[in-house]
Amino acid sequence: MSIFENKEQEFTPISKLGEFGLIDLITKEVKRYNHTTLKGIGDDAAVIKIGDLCQLVSTDLLVEGVHFDLAYAPLKHLGYKAVIVNLSDICAMNAIPTQITVSLAMSNRFPVEAVEELYAGVRLACEQYKVDLIGGDTTSSTSGLMISVTAMGTAKEEDIVYRSGASEKDLIVVSGDLGAAYLGLQILEREKAVFMEDKNMQPDLHGSEYVLERQLKPEARKDIVEMFMEMDLKPTSMIDISDGLSSELLHLAKASGLGLQIYEEKIPCDPTVMSIAEEFKLNGVTCALNGGEDYELLFTVAQKDYDKIKANPNMTVIGYMLDKNSGTNLVSHDSKIFPLSAQGWTAHENKK
Amino acid sequence: MSIFENKEQEFTPISKLGEFGLIDLITKEVKRYNHTTLKGIGDDAAVIKIGDLCQLVSTDLLVEGVHFDLAYAPLKHLGYKAVIVNLSDICAMNAIPTQITVSLAMSNRFPVEAVEELYAGVRLACEQYKVDLIGGDTTSSTSGLMISVTAMGTAKEEDIVYRSGASEKDLIVVSGDLGAAYLGLQILEREKAVFMEDKNMQPDLHGSEYVLERQLKPEARKDIVEMFMEMDLKPTSMIDISDGLSSELLHLAKASGLGLQIYEEKIPCDPTVMSIAEEFKLNGVTCALNGGEDYELLFTVAQKDYDKIKANPNMTVIGYMLDKNSGTNLVSHDSKIFPLSAQGWTAHENKK
Repeated sequence: MSIFENKEQEFTPISKLGEFGLIDLITKEVKRYNHTTLKGIGDDAAVIKIGDLCQLVSTDLLVEGVHFDLAYAPLKHLGYKAVIVNLSDICAMNAIPTQITVSLAMSNRFPVEAVEELYAGVRLACEQYKVDLIGGDTTSSTSGLMISVTAMGTAKEEDIVYRSGASEKDLIVVSGDLGAAYLGLQILEREKAVFMEDKNMQPDLHGSEYVLERQLKPEARKDIVEMFMEMDLKPTSMIDISDGLSSELLHLAKASGLGLQIYEEKIPCDPTVMSIAEEFKLNGVTCALNGGEDYELLFTVAQKDYDKIKANPNMTVIGYMLDKNSGTNLVSHDSKIFPLSAQGWTAHENKK
Repeated sequence: MSIFENKEQEFTPISKLGEFGLIDLITKEVKRYNHTTLKGIGDDAAVIKIGDLCQLVSTDLLVEGVHFDLAYAPLKHLGYKAVIVNLSDICAMNAIPTQITVSLAMSNRFPVEAVEELYAGVRLACEQYKVDLIGGDTTSSTSGLMISVTAMGTAKEEDIVYRSGASEKDLIVVSGDLGAAYLGLQILEREKAVFMEDKNMQPDLHGSEYVLERQLKPEARKDIVEMFMEMDLKPTSMIDISDGLSSELLHLAKASGLGLQIYEEKIPCDPTVMSIAEEFKLNGVTCALNGGEDYELLFTVAQKDYDKIKANPNMTVIGYMLDKNSGTNLVSHDSKIFPLSAQGWTAHENKK
C-alpha cells in the first residue's frame, strides 16, 4: 500500500522546492469563487468583505521540534506566543484583532496540567489584547505537540494596508527594535547544550533578560496600529517582522513592484543586542536583518507624513522606496552597498 | 528540564478527563471582551457580528494515526474530506460556507507530489462547494501529517440556527441516511488487516462502494441549507452528525434544555448498510446511532412546518422534542424504551 495511486511516479523532496516554492505550488491553481474574497493568500492576512466591513483572517501552525523546544519554552509562554504571532499578522493589516481559535494536538505524554498551563498563556494573551477565544479543536497526536491558531479582526476596507501599496520615495519605517528575539534563542540553545553536557549546571541568563523576553514572550504591536489611528496616519504598505527585516523588506519591495534602500546605521537595535551579539561573534545588525521573530511592524509612509512620525520614539525611519531598477540594497556604515537577501532566521552564520 | 515550572506537581492523564471534560476545562475560564462575539465555543461554529451581517467560523484538526490512516485514505480524498468536515459545521448553522484556510504539517517522508495530491483534493472541494482557499501555513513536522482547516461563511443574524433553539413538540429530522461511513471504515480496517497478513491479497471491496465512498469522500449538506432557503423554512435547532446520531441528539437536547424521543424504525439507513452491518455482526441502526462521520444534518422543525418537509426524500422525521423530565430515549422496533448514550464512534462493540 502506497500513499500514491500511481506507484511508478518519481518523487521530489520538499527541500528541493523550498518554502516559497511550495507556497507557489499550492497557490498557483487557486481559483476565486466568491466576490467577497478581496485578498486570499499572499499578505499577512486574508481579507473578506462582509457587508460594509472587512474581516481579516490569519493562521499559523506551531510544531514541537520545529518551531519550539519545550526544554526551554515554558508551556504558558508557548500558549501566549502562539496567539501573539497571529495577532501580529492582523495588526500588520492595520487592523485590531478581536477573535481567535486555538487547536491543539498532543501526545499522551502531556497531562491535563500541561493543557492548563498552555491555555493559561492563551488566556493571558486574550486578556492583554482584548481578544475572544471563540473556538478550536483538541485532539491526541502520535507524537509531540502542535498548536494551530487562527486570528480575526475587522476593519473598514479603506483602512486596510497591504504589502503592495508602497510608492517611490515613501519612507521605510520600523517599530521598536530588532534582533533581540534571535539572540534570545541563541542563549537558550547555548544553555540547553550546557545543561545536556552537565545536568547540574544552572543556566546563566544574567544580563540577557531583554533578549530572552523578546524570544519567549513577544508582543504584537497593536499599540502602533492604535497610534496610527490617533495620529490619523495610514501607512502605504505594511508587514510584520517574523522572518527577519531583510526578508520582509524583499516582500514589500516585490509586492509593491519597487526597489528600496536602507541604511545599516539606522536599523534600531537595543544596546544589549549589540553586546550579546558580540559574545556570539555575531553582528547585531545581521541579527536584525536575518534573525526574525521580533514581531515588530515594518511599514512605509508618504513623505508628507514624515512630521507625524519623526518625534515618535516607537518608530525609526531606516530608508526609502526606489524605482524597481534600483534593486533592494543596504548601505553599510562605510557607505558600501550590499544587496539584501532573504535569508531565513534558521540560518545561523554571520553573513556580513 | 521539565515542561513545568513546579516539578513537585502531581499529573492527571487527559484520558481521565475525557474529551468533553477537557473542553469544559479549557472553556470554563474563557472571558468575552468584544460585543461582536455573539457565540464562542459550544456550537458547530462561532458567530461574529460584523456590521449588519454575521461571520460563522469553525475549525478542525485532523491527525495522522488518530483521524486517518494513509494505508487506505488516498491523499486526495483526505484533502477533500478535511475541507468537507469543516464546511459541514458551517452548514449546520444554516449558512453557506464561502472561505477556508488550510494548514499542513508534514514530516520529510512526504514529497512534493504528496502535497500536490492533498491540495488537489482541497481544490476539488473548493470547486464543488464554491469556497475560496484564502490562507494557511505549511510547515515540517517531526513525524506524520496533520491538517488544520478553518471554514468561514456569512449569514444574517436572524437566519442563524443554533443547537439551543428547539422547543417541545418540535419534530426531529435527519437528512440523507446514516451509518454508512462507519461501516466503510470497518471494511477498510478489515482489508488492511488482511493485506498486512498477506501482501499479495487484493482488497475485496465489491458491493461496498456506497459505504466506502461515504467514509472516504463524504459531502457537506450545503444542498439542504439551500433547500431550507428555497422552501422558506428555518429549523429551530441544528447540528451536523459527525460523532453519531446518539451523541448529536444529546447535544441538541442539552443545549435546548429539553428531552426527546426517537423511533428506531424511523432512522434512515441505506439497504447496503443493513446487509454489511450483518456481515460484521453489527446492527445497522447501532452504526447510525454510534458510528459517526456521516456529515448529515440533524435538525428540528416546528410542527407547523411539517407540510414543507413531509414529501422531501432528503429528510426523515425520526421523533420529537419533549420536556426535560422525559429524558432522551430511543423507542425500539418492539416498543421498548432505551436511554440514548453518547458513545463515541471509536467504540466498536454492538451495544444493543
